[in-house]
Amino acid sequence: MTVSPGESLRTMRERKPLIHQITNYVVMNETANATLALGALPVMAHAPEEVEEMASVAGALVLNIGTLSKHWVDAMLLAGKAANAAGAPVVLDPVGAGATSFRTETAHRILDEVDVAVVRGNAAEVATLAGRTAEIRGVESMEAGGAELAQAAAAELGRVVSVTGPADHVSDGERTLAVSNGDPLLATVSGTGCMSTAVTGSFLAVHADAPLEGAVEALVAFGVAGEDAAREARGPGTFHAALYDALYGLDPATLDERVRVEEL
Amino acid sequence: MTVSPGESLRTMRERKPLIHQITNYVVMNETANATLALGALPVMAHAPEEVEEMASVAGALVLNIGTLSKHWVDAMLLAGKAANAAGAPVVLDPVGAGATSFRTETAHRILDEVDVAVVRGNAAEVATLAGRTAEIRGVESMEAGGAELAQAAAAELGRVVSVTGPADHVSDGERTLAVSNGDPLLATVSGTGCMSTAVTGSFLAVHADAPLEGAVEALVAFGVAGEDAAREARGPGTFHAALYDALYGLDPATLDERVRVEEL
Amino acid sequence: MTVSPGESLRTMRERKPLIHQITNYVVMNETANATLALGALPVMAHAPEEVEEMASVAGALVLNIGTLSKHWVDAMLLAGKAANAAGAPVVLDPVGAGATSFRTETAHRILDEVDVAVVRGNAAEVATLAGRTAEIRGVESMEAGGAELAQAAAAELGRVVSVTGPADHVSDGERTLAVSNGDPLLATVSGTGCMSTAVTGSFLAVHADAPLEGAVEALVAFGVAGEDAAREARGPGTFHAALYDALYGLDPATLDERVRVEEL
Repeated sequence: MTVSPGESLRTMRERKPLIHQITNYVVMNETANATLALGALPVMAHAPEEVEEMASVAGALVLNIGTLSKHWVDAMLLAGKAANAAGAPVVLDPVGAGATSFRTETAHRILDEVDVAVVRGNAAEVATLAGRTAEIRGVESMEAGGAELAQAAAAELGRVVSVTGPADHVSDGERTLAVSNGDPLLATVSGTGCMSTAVTGSFLAVHADAPLEGAVEALVAFGVAGEDAAREARGPGTFHAALYDALYGLDPATLDERVRVEEL
Repeated sequence: MTVSPGESLRTMRERKPLIHQITNYVVMNETANATLALGALPVMAHAPEEVEEMASVAGALVLNIGTLSKHWVDAMLLAGKAANAAGAPVVLDPVGAGATSFRTETAHRILDEVDVAVVRGNAAEVATLAGRTAEIRGVESMEAGGAELAQAAAAELGRVVSVTGPADHVSDGERTLAVSNGDPLLATVSGTGCMSTAVTGSFLAVHADAPLEGAVEALVAFGVAGEDAAREARGPGTFHAALYDALYGLDPATLDERVRVEEL
Repeated sequence: MTVSPGESLRTMRERKPLIHQITNYVVMNETANATLALGALPVMAHAPEEVEEMASVAGALVLNIGTLSKHWVDAMLLAGKAANAAGAPVVLDPVGAGATSFRTETAHRILDEVDVAVVRGNAAEVATLAGRTAEIRGVESMEAGGAELAQAAAAELGRVVSVTGPADHVSDGERTLAVSNGDPLLATVSGTGCMSTAVTGSFLAVHADAPLEGAVEALVAFGVAGEDAAREARGPGTFHAALYDALYGLDPATLDERVRVEEL
């Protein structure tokens, strides 16, 4: 498989797709700023009165259950169906699936009722959704990731699955790719997983027909930004600030040279 | 018209007015920190049980519909009426008016039921409220701003209107001013519009009798901080951090020398 | 009393306790990142469907009423009782107690229905809870802190009370300690009080049997991080970023040498 995150990024910055995000309170500012720095347009809207209208004009919809409550789940389902009807790809971040029954059930409910293009989660969340037992503490996975998990979960769920962690793996059940871009400092900032989901939505908005490629390119771009930010950082706080600089500074002309992807 | 943001800033830092903000989830931390760095005291409160009590002791009330829902709209109306009764100026940021019917209707409803001193928005939001057709994508305006829009909207709405964008214009329907302070990096950080609204509330708190002057001075002060921050920045993330440093570092003694305002 | 924040920090980083936080919208990202940078695992969850399940596996529970509403108060009570049943220590941050009746009553209700180990607040909030008249503007205390207030409030409430401000004081009603670590820049960033509460929860998670020691060690560690961050800062924004770097960089081997605590 050939991926060209540089070309997709160039297209994204020209089209500036609207990325509708119904996400958790902890990371709203962070995912909005990551989306904007990358080159797409973030919008947050969760009221049942407006989510369908917003989702139906969006280039992609990102659903994230990190601080869910009943009303928000209802809004996610409404928005997801509207995005499906409008042909906008939907990305699901099942934050904390496996940590509480409510989160596991909500993630399954969204997968049942909405045509989700890509599930982006950590190993424990993805293992939970694939019906395996997994150790999760709060929203942090204690599981090792792995190609086998991504492949099996994608086959089980019938969607592209993107498992991030020390190494990242993306699979559609048939093809499985390992992405090695990134930096360990990404794990020291809360919400970088959620940011990678927003970045995945941004790449899908210019790649709706090829969610596997879009998901891989997103992890490459976000990982490269992490590599660049790490060079400027003295710890998690300065890394966090530098990460937006790096997303903004990603160069479409040279990004493809930095791809570290292996098809397994 | 003579404006003296330096004198107003000195007064603000002496009095430390309480700025009650009912704002969106994306920018709450950002507007709180901008308000505090400038020299006023931010407080967020949205429960119907307490908004009237809080608004009636505030120096100004900021209403921002960026992630609205029914309960929050009810709270904004309660708070707005309490602020009116107490004589505290109210600033409205109609985030996303024009993007969904719910937002457009909510902005109009607040303008109908609350005596709003200043409306601070982007060109598409303001054009929508003035009854014009405008292109808005999510919460980002695709419209050019302009003096004519600010003047016409102020005349139509009967309030001071502050339209920010590549250039800023403030009008009360009779007098119209262009503010050229600022930096393009402000557009790369999500929530800087919302911050400028919080800063507007902070200046109105020491300028309640002169909302046109207060709104202009706020854009000057915020713009000068943006100019200072840009010199320290390597991109949106370091600019964002430097912006709070710059707001905190604004010098009342020299601020007036940096005013770039033209009466049209 | 002997405190060893270094030893507790080493234990925390080995065990990585889960710190369940039901906190306000303004600081959720900040307290999550402070907890993570320190070495514990933050999780935010507020839905009645899941708070008991989450709190009962947590190492500590942090309740913060900074942007409360009825449903969130209900969730705090459910979570608090579940944490009590599971033996996890509970820390309460009574943000804005005294500013509105709703906040004062909610703080008292939590203290009545939940076995709170430590109350961490500013002088006005603590004075309000101890039945004194206090001047508070929004969420900012206009009161001087003091050893006498901490001691009297702890005796009145029957819990450890941690009063932060220009100087910090912690008391269990019998023993009272002054903590001098810290830096004035901490007061220029919104939410540093809330962060110190999250840090208090993190230390209690490895110190459940000794809340007085845990609360003191937390203020030492957070204060030392503030001292380190101040050396890197040019104002509130760069200080804020440097604060996470400093929490992450706290060295268990040398932390005890930097303790500035006096038993009164």
